[in-house]
Amino acid sequence: MIKPGIPQGTRDFTSAVVLKRLYILNTIRRHFEVTGYEPLETPAMELLETLTGKYGDEGDQLIFKILNNGLSDAANIEKAQAGFQKILEGKNSEDITSRALRYDLTIPFARYVAMNRGTLHFPFKRYQMQPVWRADRPQKGRYREFTQCDADVVGSNSLWNEVELVHLYRNTFDTLGLKDAEITLNNRKLLAALALKCGAASMLTSITIAIDKLDKIGIDKVMESLKESGLTSEQVQTIHTYLSISGSNREKINQISNLLQGIHEAEKGIEELEFILNRVPDHYVHLDFKLARGLDYYTGTIYEVKAPQTVKMGSIGGGGRYDNLTGLFGVEGISGVGISFGVDRIYDVMDTLNLFPNDLNTNLKVLFFNMGDEESVHAFEICTAVQQSGIPSMLFPDSVKLDKQFKYAQKRNIPYIVIVGSEEVIHKKVVIKHLNTGNQYTLNANELISHLQNQIK
Amino acid sequence: MIKPGIPQGTRDFTSAVVLKRLYILNTIRRHFEVTGYEPLETPAMELLETLTGKYGDEGDQLIFKILNNGLSDAANIEKAQAGFQKILEGKNSEDITSRALRYDLTIPFARYVAMNRGTLHFPFKRYQMQPVWRADRPQKGRYREFTQCDADVVGSNSLWNEVELVHLYRNTFDTLGLKDAEITLNNRKLLAALALKCGAASMLTSITIAIDKLDKIGIDKVMESLKESGLTSEQVQTIHTYLSISGSNREKINQISNLLQGIHEAEKGIEELEFILNRVPDHYVHLDFKLARGLDYYTGTIYEVKAPQTVKMGSIGGGGRYDNLTGLFGVEGISGVGISFGVDRIYDVMDTLNLFPNDLNTNLKVLFFNMGDEESVHAFEICTAVQQSGIPSMLFPDSVKLDKQFKYAQKRNIPYIVIVGSEEVIHKKVVIKHLNTGNQYTLNANELISHLQNQIK
Repeated sequence: MIKPGIPQGTRDFTSAVVLKRLYILNTIRRHFEVTGYEPLETPAMELLETLTGKYGDEGDQLIFKILNNGLSDAANIEKAQAGFQKILEGKNSEDITSRALRYDLTIPFARYVAMNRGTLHFPFKRYQMQPVWRADRPQKGRYREFTQCDADVVGSNSLWNEVELVHLYRNTFDTLGLKDAEITLNNRKLLAALALKCGAASMLTSITIAIDKLDKIGIDKVMESLKESGLTSEQVQTIHTYLSISGSNREKINQISNLLQGIHEAEKGIEELEFILNRVPDHYVHLDFKLARGLDYYTGTIYEVKAPQTVKMGSIGGGGRYDNLTGLFGVEGISGVGISFGVDRIYDVMDTLNLFPNDLNTNLKVLFFNMGDEESVHAFEICTAVQQSGIPSMLFPDSVKLDKQFKYAQKRNIPYIVIVGSEEVIHKKVVIKHLNTGNQYTLNANELISHLQNQIK
Repeated sequence: MIKPGIPQGTRDFTSAVVLKRLYILNTIRRHFEVTGYEPLETPAMELLETLTGKYGDEGDQLIFKILNNGLSDAANIEKAQAGFQKILEGKNSEDITSRALRYDLTIPFARYVAMNRGTLHFPFKRYQMQPVWRADRPQKGRYREFTQCDADVVGSNSLWNEVELVHLYRNTFDTLGLKDAEITLNNRKLLAALALKCGAASMLTSITIAIDKLDKIGIDKVMESLKESGLTSEQVQTIHTYLSISGSNREKINQISNLLQGIHEAEKGIEELEFILNRVPDHYVHLDFKLARGLDYYTGTIYEVKAPQTVKMGSIGGGGRYDNLTGLFGVEGISGVGISFGVDRIYDVMDTLNLFPNDLNTNLKVLFFNMGDEESVHAFEICTAVQQSGIPSMLFPDSVKLDKQFKYAQKRNIPYIVIVGSEEVIHKKVVIKHLNTGNQYTLNANELISHLQNQIK
């Protein structure tokens, strides 16, 4: 006999959790739609070749691959044997696994745009809300199955898209009650300019990786690792000055302008940031030149949203401008910009801060007691009418002791019970009892529906 | 360079499709909730051992298995080598694949109930709406990734659950405009009684399988295959009589009562069917003793919903009563009954019959033209206010020729365009143009919002 369980890093979502998750997802969806983004859904499985080589070596290791079916068929067995050998050598083999689970929503989107560019209307604004899978080590806020919500615009270079996405982030987090979620902004061109300023353009990747670890390991260790990767004291000092920039957004712009003066790439990055800053209320975003966003495909603006500081959760969203994402699929020159919401972490944050509306959990409003064979026929009929008026209700299916039915109502937090006993059948009445107050009323069927509608609104 | 593609049997869903699918899913969800079912979501990946052996040999072949990660790690390599050998022999190996993709929603539900029976309130009514994956050969109406919507009650033997599910099916299909979707009903006990009547109780499985193929191969072939499986002419004749029962529900009940008179199992099955028939309007369901529902775990009532006959699509839903599903996971004695909606086929049927509301496709209502750097600042501000009033709208991000912006509005079916030119900036006005009528109005920002609200309602 199997002792039932589920894979590590995955979760069952009970009713209460599903309803809270839907609250988040529907809020985000509403904001996406009101801003003119169209929905897209892609398959859970992509061709393995679509995914490999897009997320760096580390990412490649975390992709869940699907075993081909029919490997033991006589026709396949020879190829399969050779394929297994490749797998054991740490390589991929089409003969063993030609499909894999979606790892993020960005690459499937790029694949979709490249496949369908002939029929899309640019600027193409799409949103996508689907689970993704990563074979990461599970820990707090990190799951092997989690949901991403992305909004991207491709086919437009205009910085108005960046401005719109800041508003979209701010409005959505405000609606969710996360007014303290901090939207931080930077521009990759400033990191490139910093590398140029150091006279170490070829070190851009090392510098980006080092800065990306700042939050985790602290400034001293970052300086150390930069020295170890071969930078001079002077170069490291320049980076230290860059990382020490602080103050208001305006003050930061002034400092960075001084530090990186005369470098074309920096001027361009600052111009882009100023375009955005001039078009959003000042308190919407915080400039943060320390923001690096790992080794992604970003080339311009980068975003990251931090959870309110009272909750230790780190990033709950991020995104940026990429100049040539579809180039990976042979379609050059389509620039885009996008943002992502980390739904599972947003859930954890909102749960910790008690930000969900109270009434999400009681979807079932009315329990009709089962008082016996005859009576339940009448009860079911009235229950059906109550349902048709839009009020969630049910007849208790079994004719069992009333205290058992009563306990069921309590456990499911059902606020109203309705009794249709033999007396009530004769007089065509029902008794409704409010479980929170103990009040009860004798009503006919129509009165019951109006009564409930008034109570529930 | 990769030519982008997606795995066979999977699909990208564009905006128009997603919105139609959401229409179906939200309709079903609303009916589930109003009937007192609570949502549950389970992980896409289950432990392989949870799934194997539950769907018959054929089903087992169709499960998508996930390759374990780290097979080439030194610590794993020996076990992996042995494991691959087992795979090549057509067996499973935990060392190669310990997880698999959800194949249906019923087994994960049974696994969930078995895992959490201590904390559940019985009767436990859950609904679940999630994709499932099968390595079936793709064909019309059959995909490798498709969505199921299930409602089940476990922990109650009452036939009121069966009655409720008939109403739930009927109401949901009616709401979707599928009044001609035919809900057919049978009871597994009648098939068992038929085998007994033939004096061939041990042949129940062969008889069930043969009858299940009736729709596909016709009565003559079924008779032939029954003879081939060793039944006598007399036995086959009895089955023929059983399969020939026709008329109204009442007439069918009379005929089956005569045919299977005196067999206890038959009396029980008829009693169960009559309980349901007496509690639902007669036109809600059609009795069909030919209904078998394959080799499932069903033990009592079985349901199947057929698409309207004008569309050749076959079954768009099914379900039934199972007496001991959680027994597979060591938890005995929890009876249940459930139904499933085949969303992808329902979609295909509704699309063929043109049953989707017309206004699903235009979620974006207003396009603000980009008339230049200065003007777009004003346009964006007003656009934000329009969005905040709940009306989906956007500023065209690029300052390009107006006919390009106009084409974009046409392609996306946007009904209103708004122009904020230099004149309008000076006079604090905007011009709104209705693209369907050509009418245009000059308004201030507040008037614009009221105007749009009146138009859109």
